[in-house]
Amino acid sequence: MPSQGLEGVVAATTLLSEVDGERGELLIAGFPVGELAAHATFEETTWLLWNGDLPTQSQVEAFKSELTAQRRLPAPTMSLLRESAAAAIDPMDALRMGVDTVSLESNQASAIVARVPTIVATFWRLSKGLEPLQPRTDLGHAANFLYMLSGESPDAERVRALETYLNTVIDHGLNASTFTCRVITSTGSDLVSAVVGAIGALKGPLHGGAPGPALEMVFEIGDASRADEVLRRKIEAGERLMGFGHRVYKVRDPRADALATAAERLYKRAGDMRLYTLARSVEATAIRLLEEYKPGRRLQTNVEFYTALLLHGLGFEVPLFTPVFAMSRVSGWIAHAIEQRAANRLIRPQSEYIGPRDRTWTPVGNRTATTPVPIG
Amino acid sequence: MPSQGLEGVVAATTLLSEVDGERGELLIAGFPVGELAAHATFEETTWLLWNGDLPTQSQVEAFKSELTAQRRLPAPTMSLLRESAAAAIDPMDALRMGVDTVSLESNQASAIVARVPTIVATFWRLSKGLEPLQPRTDLGHAANFLYMLSGESPDAERVRALETYLNTVIDHGLNASTFTCRVITSTGSDLVSAVVGAIGALKGPLHGGAPGPALEMVFEIGDASRADEVLRRKIEAGERLMGFGHRVYKVRDPRADALATAAERLYKRAGDMRLYTLARSVEATAIRLLEEYKPGRRLQTNVEFYTALLLHGLGFEVPLFTPVFAMSRVSGWIAHAIEQRAANRLIRPQSEYIGPRDRTWTPVGNRTATTPVPIG
Repeated sequence: MPSQGLEGVVAATTLLSEVDGERGELLIAGFPVGELAAHATFEETTWLLWNGDLPTQSQVEAFKSELTAQRRLPAPTMSLLRESAAAAIDPMDALRMGVDTVSLESNQASAIVARVPTIVATFWRLSKGLEPLQPRTDLGHAANFLYMLSGESPDAERVRALETYLNTVIDHGLNASTFTCRVITSTGSDLVSAVVGAIGALKGPLHGGAPGPALEMVFEIGDASRADEVLRRKIEAGERLMGFGHRVYKVRDPRADALATAAERLYKRAGDMRLYTLARSVEATAIRLLEEYKPGRRLQTNVEFYTALLLHGLGFEVPLFTPVFAMSRVSGWIAHAIEQRAANRLIRPQSEYIGPRDRTWTPVGNRTATTPVPIG
Repeated sequence: MPSQGLEGVVAATTLLSEVDGERGELLIAGFPVGELAAHATFEETTWLLWNGDLPTQSQVEAFKSELTAQRRLPAPTMSLLRESAAAAIDPMDALRMGVDTVSLESNQASAIVARVPTIVATFWRLSKGLEPLQPRTDLGHAANFLYMLSGESPDAERVRALETYLNTVIDHGLNASTFTCRVITSTGSDLVSAVVGAIGALKGPLHGGAPGPALEMVFEIGDASRADEVLRRKIEAGERLMGFGHRVYKVRDPRADALATAAERLYKRAGDMRLYTLARSVEATAIRLLEEYKPGRRLQTNVEFYTALLLHGLGFEVPLFTPVFAMSRVSGWIAHAIEQRAANRLIRPQSEYIGPRDRTWTPVGNRTATTPVPIG
């Protein structure tokens, strides 16, 4: 029997993360995700995944310097991003192309990680008709990204909220982009090729593309008193409630907790607490109604719901959500590439042929017309 | 048990190709590969894979026009290729970046297929310090590529040899690049993302990278009288004989036959028949010695051996071999993307976590140093 989604097929052993969908637990290199989320800098979590343990002070300082030194984009990348913004292409396409150009100079893991935020922020400002900003060397990875988007020095609370997000989504088993990265790496190919492939996979709406709609649903509801009515209408119309349900998690996604806590802190300090309260109320109503309409399906809040709330609280617009997801996950992809290389085996499954056989060549004049297949 | 190479795991049903490794047979959309190899144009084989049947005269003419109209590269792609040539990067990196820029304008299957040869030839000429040539509109896909490399109108024999090669390697089950393309497509992502990922996978030496060494071995032997001695020495030193053995085929790769016939025709007409005869003699000796030293392993000639001979006969240097492979396989990748979309399921296998558990956060000052992992 073909397993078209490879559900339940174990394609790798790993030291990087464990997703326990029944218990609602996520380990990142042995740490429950909540242990890292609110404490670690993104540089520390990246180092942890790449090296197996948290770095010492001198190690993390050296790593930060290594990243900082590679933030600036070379001229060919800048011109490609200008063309991309002028053509108003999808930000994930721009990110994919931008990372692709790392091959012009380097193939280092740190160069890739260092450049992702610069590419995302540069494209974003160009798309808004603003001149891009040069990266700063006095700021950490997350803080520099916030600066490069807005030109303002971010306060500690916003930096902490972004670090928490980046730590929370950095790795998550063999999701489709991570698996893409491992398949490419398994051929003996290079890191840029593997990461570029993974970005292409993350772009897909079935993978990285759903936080936007989850937020739009909260805005559409607008007031907690309308949640029951609006959500019932959606469920009865057969719509999927964005931000709920996951192929793996059958209980609440543990990342949702980490992000909800971070969002609450952020909104309390900096923002619109009304939106946070509304979101919690929408969540509670959605879970109640999903259990009522789809008993036993165990549809729970997933990472997208609070991702949307947190990133919105940071002032990010919806088209930035998936690129910012990539800014975190790139460290996980590279960790998987390192792991794949260390015990490599070419990944090559099989297909089952179900088509015709023994066809023979017919000269062009003797053929009958087939209706062409439309290609989207 | 983890299946790290996914051997024997059926990950898709397909109408595109069937690889029968025990019988040494390859079906392309129901045609034994030998039926198409020497007869079809590359445009016909591409249409066949995308639509399920060979095109009529008017269909193939329309398709040729569609491809021809999209051969030229826009300015951003040209400048990126100039930068790539100046940086002397791997031709597969240049191809990957070049195809990536298709997103600036289009996401059409025909645009991708049309541009691949232009990108390959443009980068090649720039790398040699030659100005790139504009594509011609009066030549087919294969002929135009030969023209764009050399500036000379190719004779019919060379065009036929290249078409035969392109038809022979256009699709081959769920090899790693095709599988990459399907994983990326399964997220709902676009064709450029899927093809760019596949190019990255094909770049890997365990997938697309071995035809060069097979040819170098023939040159190293130099004269049929030395074949036995040189090959024995290699086998006894534990070297792998390049061009022999395949994970799937346990008999002679059917593509080797199609390519050997084409190479013989080409060398008879245009070239150095001595090299062809030498290669056949090396092949016979290698198979005899492999059976002697590794009885029962059934190591037979694979596609790489005659690929190398045929492409060398066309005047291609070794660094062009994998990009020319991509020029063919891109049509297969797109066919698989179309098929994946038609009955999609997100491809997401599982991993088995074998690392530590229940680690707790340690402030940076309290950590002991770990030796960093070198990242290649």
